[in-house]
Amino acid sequence: MPTHSMSGTAPGHARICRGCWDQMSVPIPIRGPLAVPFRVFGITRSKMNPNICTICERAFRRVKKRRHISATATILFADIRGYTRLSDRIDAIELSDIVSTFQDRCAQGIWAHDGIINKQMGDGLMAIFNFPIKIERHVEAAVTAALDIQRHCKAALATLAGRLDEETAKTLGVGVGIHSGPVEIGEFSTVRTDFTAIGSVVNLAARLEAQAAPGEILMSAECAAQAPDLTTGTSTRLLSLKGIEQPVPAHVLVAAA
Amino acid sequence: MPTHSMSGTAPGHARICRGCWDQMSVPIPIRGPLAVPFRVFGITRSKMNPNICTICERAFRRVKKRRHISATATILFADIRGYTRLSDRIDAIELSDIVSTFQDRCAQGIWAHDGIINKQMGDGLMAIFNFPIKIERHVEAAVTAALDIQRHCKAALATLAGRLDEETAKTLGVGVGIHSGPVEIGEFSTVRTDFTAIGSVVNLAARLEAQAAPGEILMSAECAAQAPDLTTGTSTRLLSLKGIEQPVPAHVLVAAA
Repeated sequence: MPTHSMSGTAPGHARICRGCWDQMSVPIPIRGPLAVPFRVFGITRSKMNPNICTICERAFRRVKKRRHISATATILFADIRGYTRLSDRIDAIELSDIVSTFQDRCAQGIWAHDGIINKQMGDGLMAIFNFPIKIERHVEAAVTAALDIQRHCKAALATLAGRLDEETAKTLGVGVGIHSGPVEIGEFSTVRTDFTAIGSVVNLAARLEAQAAPGEILMSAECAAQAPDLTTGTSTRLLSLKGIEQPVPAHVLVAAA
Repeated sequence: MPTHSMSGTAPGHARICRGCWDQMSVPIPIRGPLAVPFRVFGITRSKMNPNICTICERAFRRVKKRRHISATATILFADIRGYTRLSDRIDAIELSDIVSTFQDRCAQGIWAHDGIINKQMGDGLMAIFNFPIKIERHVEAAVTAALDIQRHCKAALATLAGRLDEETAKTLGVGVGIHSGPVEIGEFSTVRTDFTAIGSVVNLAARLEAQAAPGEILMSAECAAQAPDLTTGTSTRLLSLKGIEQPVPAHVLVAAA
């Protein structure tokens, strides 16, 4: 078993910001009485991960005075497969409940392994592992989080499936894509200041996710090689991906029930 | 000519939050000396649009005490076509400059017509028109913003294209998708608190954008009917879209140089 989940601080329990500590060795209190004066200046816990602070979100502009930095990270994309079809078949209130449940269960899995939820967009999200919280085995952290996500979401979607027509139920599930490597981290916009990661590694993770069938986790060969304990015996699939000339071999992982 | 651009407050000039005023008739100062005490409590100008405040971003949980509301809105998606291919061919610093330029030029077009930038995700974004700032002719506002986006981005991308191989240059451009109708607006996640819009109208706008060729604006028939002055003489195309059973007729608009 990977050890990162043991060494990680449980979400919602770090007393100082783990991002500021890992990246800059600066102790920023985010819980307890020492955190109060910081809160007055708008320095509070981040919505991306409750163990980091809002300084982390702005670190690149205000603290580092650079617009972006290079980092090695693992990028995870997840979304609800069959969501478009589903949204035409159930009412808006129910749809919003499903999206909330999905987002919250994904957050549990991602935070439990020290990742951050960097973007949420409707039925989809993007998570970053190894930035700003450093994780020694960040590919394993992401793959374990993906398995958690699949398990957490499966039960929720199964309840729903019973009330849908067969075709819609069959297409419903969560798809996950994971890739790892060098990314550029920064704000990439002067109009909004939340940081993100960009680059070809991010694009490939997104493309893998788009190809994942309901319940599947698709990861690059690089990821599979870095998480051998979690990926032995997985099947591989050769994918033709938009914007990428050569076919890409993807490792297919399906969470045990 | 549509009149909304005349009646809209120039971005960065409203003294009270236009969202709080339009939605709740509450005057929240966002500029000038009256705004200072509000800033102490974290009520500042929103990154989504400089004429609305951070209360708008949280209005549904903290002010309205409802988790989501129904609204009629026009949804615009835009992204850089050919981005994946491009990201394999230029260095990360240059890529990040292109993404920043794209995001900033899109913001100009969207804010000039009272829309908000709701999501930014790498080379893409989602904008909402008619919420929280009310716009009488919100489809026209979105279409005019899309034409501005295409014009603003064209020059920037043309400079770049000269340094790329022919195939990459040819695939490079901005794609826009627009659809309008009932959406659910809310937070749809307990882990992050920025509001968004969801529902089949949002999905169709995203699907239309995904099918837009470089330089194209694809909009639904509903949108074209509501913006007749801007869409007479446009061609239509029948699209097969993922998750939608019936082919969808899309109106194709290309900005004049």
